[in-house]
Amino acid sequence: MSLELIANNKVHGGWHKRYSHKSTVNNCTMTFAIFLPPGVDETAKAPVLYWLSGLTCTDENFMQKAAAFKTAAELGIILVAPDTSPRGEGVADDPEGSYDFGLGAGFYVNATEEPYKQHYQMYDYICTELPALIDEHFPSNGKKAISGHSMGGHGALVIGLRNLGQYTSVSAFAPITNPLNCPWGEKAFSGYLGKDRESWKAYDSCELLSHTPADKCPPLLVSQGMSDNFLESQLRPERLVAAAEQADVSLCLEQHPGYDHSYFFISSFIDQHLRFHAQYLS
Amino acid sequence: MSLELIANNKVHGGWHKRYSHKSTVNNCTMTFAIFLPPGVDETAKAPVLYWLSGLTCTDENFMQKAAAFKTAAELGIILVAPDTSPRGEGVADDPEGSYDFGLGAGFYVNATEEPYKQHYQMYDYICTELPALIDEHFPSNGKKAISGHSMGGHGALVIGLRNLGQYTSVSAFAPITNPLNCPWGEKAFSGYLGKDRESWKAYDSCELLSHTPADKCPPLLVSQGMSDNFLESQLRPERLVAAAEQADVSLCLEQHPGYDHSYFFISSFIDQHLRFHAQYLS
Repeated sequence: MSLELIANNKVHGGWHKRYSHKSTVNNCTMTFAIFLPPGVDETAKAPVLYWLSGLTCTDENFMQKAAAFKTAAELGIILVAPDTSPRGEGVADDPEGSYDFGLGAGFYVNATEEPYKQHYQMYDYICTELPALIDEHFPSNGKKAISGHSMGGHGALVIGLRNLGQYTSVSAFAPITNPLNCPWGEKAFSGYLGKDRESWKAYDSCELLSHTPADKCPPLLVSQGMSDNFLESQLRPERLVAAAEQADVSLCLEQHPGYDHSYFFISSFIDQHLRFHAQYLS
Repeated sequence: MSLELIANNKVHGGWHKRYSHKSTVNNCTMTFAIFLPPGVDETAKAPVLYWLSGLTCTDENFMQKAAAFKTAAELGIILVAPDTSPRGEGVADDPEGSYDFGLGAGFYVNATEEPYKQHYQMYDYICTELPALIDEHFPSNGKKAISGHSMGGHGALVIGLRNLGQYTSVSAFAPITNPLNCPWGEKAFSGYLGKDRESWKAYDSCELLSHTPADKCPPLLVSQGMSDNFLESQLRPERLVAAAEQADVSLCLEQHPGYDHSYFFISSFIDQHLRFHAQYLS
């Protein structure tokens, strides 16, 4: 598969690049951003941290606002930030044009409902197509971890927990822990997956974690701002804690007083997440 | 004067806040952003670094993209980022709607031409009105430094060099060094200041620096990316070097291969600029 370079910026001695490519699984052109730390090449390969963004984001938000480059450069970690949904002509959007369904809101699922199933195959895109593309075109050493924010925190947890052994470590900022039982999740899963709630369980991190064998579970770190406007209505980290207890799995939940749902929060703790992943990626 | 709080985000243990207020000199409502490092209050005051942004920016770009908070928190420096022009109903814009004149492009001058002189008094706003407001409402200790990017680099150099003794130190990223003799400057100064080029000289950092008494000149740091698309046509740092030589003043010009004009460049070297200013602010 071929990549088209659409941006190229030197940053902290490495390179931020944006590419577009034809996605087979999403049946449209997709865009992603990558950070290549200094000194990484075919003779000195590096591990990859995949970052899944939240509602309304593109590949650009994390790269512009997370302040991750200095520490990623120091640790020698490649960062990959995909878009949050398929896009382009012919890609169905929410008919009502809301921010929490359709474009910018793929929820990292494989849609089974019309008309979304033609393009919204974000789970396969993140788990399979994108990593294959990264490994083909960039000097990755095959080790990978995953993190994300809000909808992307949900995505990171679900993908890490459904693919045990594939990601060295999983972290999330303010994740939607239990989309089966919150307004954002119920709206998105109804639209993408239909009315049968049984089919939703494969995309719910509380459901998945509660059934994860403790000896197979990757290290988990979750950071949550305690002044986050979505804490009570959408995020519910205590349910993830309960699922971890049920599975007898260690979960590190850090609760940070005063922090909200924004990139100001993410940028305050991204270094800590990078160092968490570096322990397992190196 | 009263301030209206319009955003409030905890970041790196401190607070990012946005305020709007009625500006007397600009005769309109202005917006600025401030970062208050942790631990700063009326019993533990801190110095202020004023940041002047470039064309098209608002108070938000630096705060979201520069990755300055971690080091500013560590050093105990208050950051203030004003908007780049007056705005709002009745504020004249470029009739042609260009990006480099009018809204988002105040060039940090006091306009003397109609219709711009009604509102475009950014020089007085940055030098006088805004610092008075900051000192009145926030725990600043009275020490201040100034920095900026591109059009804001021009603004920082001009304001630092016209107000000797008031700013402990002056720095700039990719500044427009010689607006008297570059397309951006000629367009802006013609529109705001009129046809008499003599009146432009008060806003040209090369002109000002060449006549600055060496013993009165603040410490100067300029960083320039060598893959900056505007280097040859608009920025011309070598002219600032020549002016410094003429005045027998020390100027540190750092030229960084591969870096462009974006916030990826700024975020790579903002820590260094903060540490430069901290030497003199503390």
